[in-house]
Amino acid sequence: MDLTDPQTAYLVSVGTFLPGDPVDNARLAAALGVSEEWIEVFIGTKTRHFARDVESGEVRHTLADLCARAGERALDAAGLDPSAIDFVVMGTATPDHLMPATVNLVADRLGIDQVPTYQLQSGCAGAVQALELGRTLVAATGGTGLVIGGDVCSKHLDLRQDLTGAAPSELVNYVLFGDGAGAAVLAPEPSGERVALRRVLNRLTGLGRSPGQLIEWFGVADKDSGKQAVKEDYKAIEESVPVMAGEILWELLGELDWAPEDLDYLLPPQLSGVMTAKITAELGVPGAEEVSCVADTGNNGNALPFLQTERLLRRMTSGQKALAVAVESSKWLKAGFALEKL
Amino acid sequence: MDLTDPQTAYLVSVGTFLPGDPVDNARLAAALGVSEEWIEVFIGTKTRHFARDVESGEVRHTLADLCARAGERALDAAGLDPSAIDFVVMGTATPDHLMPATVNLVADRLGIDQVPTYQLQSGCAGAVQALELGRTLVAATGGTGLVIGGDVCSKHLDLRQDLTGAAPSELVNYVLFGDGAGAAVLAPEPSGERVALRRVLNRLTGLGRSPGQLIEWFGVADKDSGKQAVKEDYKAIEESVPVMAGEILWELLGELDWAPEDLDYLLPPQLSGVMTAKITAELGVPGAEEVSCVADTGNNGNALPFLQTERLLRRMTSGQKALAVAVESSKWLKAGFALEKL
Repeated sequence: MDLTDPQTAYLVSVGTFLPGDPVDNARLAAALGVSEEWIEVFIGTKTRHFARDVESGEVRHTLADLCARAGERALDAAGLDPSAIDFVVMGTATPDHLMPATVNLVADRLGIDQVPTYQLQSGCAGAVQALELGRTLVAATGGTGLVIGGDVCSKHLDLRQDLTGAAPSELVNYVLFGDGAGAAVLAPEPSGERVALRRVLNRLTGLGRSPGQLIEWFGVADKDSGKQAVKEDYKAIEESVPVMAGEILWELLGELDWAPEDLDYLLPPQLSGVMTAKITAELGVPGAEEVSCVADTGNNGNALPFLQTERLLRRMTSGQKALAVAVESSKWLKAGFALEKL
Repeated sequence: MDLTDPQTAYLVSVGTFLPGDPVDNARLAAALGVSEEWIEVFIGTKTRHFARDVESGEVRHTLADLCARAGERALDAAGLDPSAIDFVVMGTATPDHLMPATVNLVADRLGIDQVPTYQLQSGCAGAVQALELGRTLVAATGGTGLVIGGDVCSKHLDLRQDLTGAAPSELVNYVLFGDGAGAAVLAPEPSGERVALRRVLNRLTGLGRSPGQLIEWFGVADKDSGKQAVKEDYKAIEESVPVMAGEILWELLGELDWAPEDLDYLLPPQLSGVMTAKITAELGVPGAEEVSCVADTGNNGNALPFLQTERLLRRMTSGQKALAVAVESSKWLKAGFALEKL
């Protein structure tokens, strides 16, 4: 095996940041006026973190805060100075502003300047897209990059509303999501964690299909339009995501020429505690240890793959292989990546 | 000169789309309750296009509409079937939704599927970032890509408001912007227009500087916060943009080893009719013919470099060289690119 394959980038370090104390189901249920048991049974998520105070709605953190803290931890873990970073790529569905792109505010906080920055607008596939773009830039330039993913979903959750009697399809968004960020340093040579990013899958597969998830933003001209902010086709998601997850897994294994038995860890899609358990069971690779976070962190979008990878790195030993699978139901994006520790 | 430099991508075609009829200053002034002469003298933009009806506010086009139309024209001009496209990259500051990314809705309309898609969140530098990412992907994969830029700024302009007596700093946003989209096909070998994308500059330079431009989006939790949607530090913009434009021009010329006299065309930053004329004069390359569009199209962000390039291609002949300069004042991004017709 060539340790320095020019198409491979190496994960040097990962850092993550979750805002505030975990918000448990009792506290969330009380704020929303729903039953704690309903959250436990139907969602299966135990805690999540919010960038704003649940009771008062006060904003405690921006997305730039979360991402800068995660980026700082990744740089510290890599033992790198901000000046060692040659580019920054960030994925998010919920930027602080439309302009400037949040990635530039994050770079500013970290003391990174005079380099290219890219911010990808994406949901559950965004962190994988950012890793793929990072890998491509490392290969093309030989530089070292900081790849970031984060979301502040709570900008769409006004927990001070009275949700007694709201439809489950509306309530579910309030109990599904969380806020958070993660970051990784990618380099052309193995160092630090010495984990090779062997392959990334990132592909639109939604031709002719209605979006499974739609998240709006409001402008001055449509602020009072009464448009619903978050719409999800849960039936389509429940039907399609497990199937797509299987296709991603087997396609990546095939391309890598890895057998299912070669797989030491599986990082499955992190929709919710309940859905993730169901998908993992259906994926049918019982030999691979599951690495999940959603039951503790909530679905915090672009942060998830970093949170999972951080947990993975604590366990992964030399020669071990891991595969991450992500499905973005918005317009049916397939995403995933393969890691191998040298 | 190596015609097939592996780091060079080739512009095969460009297509653009502007919504509806041009809205002239008389019509805009009447809608806003301001003087037509004020727009002419201080902004210098004669017409712009809006995706919604000026008088009724009715939405006539989404960003996906505009970008799909521009993409279709670029594919047609290249004589390519959607199946020939190996990736899509899009830049915008004003996506239709937060999720799905608009690029995926555009791909769907064009019949493009089973390929990677990327949507960059950015303002005036976004189209250049998209071209740079496109160039990198062409070089890394040998594939052919569709690069798109577009903005629907009117999502933040409620022209039905009574703006009589509003401060000029508020009014200026209503007369500066427009909507539109552009697209280009990039390939690893010269064909079609046979224009080489020789070099792209894309760099954050805002360390420690306050944003010169800030555009908000509103979520459910802050819809009624009274936050101002568009803020611009016109003093900082007027001071910094001409200086940064000069630095971009001279840096690109230096890297390309082109003399100012080698330059046949200059595509200057498109802030407004008045600002663009001022910047062009200060850039001091009188031998290069100016290619601008802002006086006719308004500042439609990520569409501008495509609109300028379309005008350029009508004039450019074999062996001629052009240089485009863009400054994003949000967090002070330097951007630019160099074209040469084979």
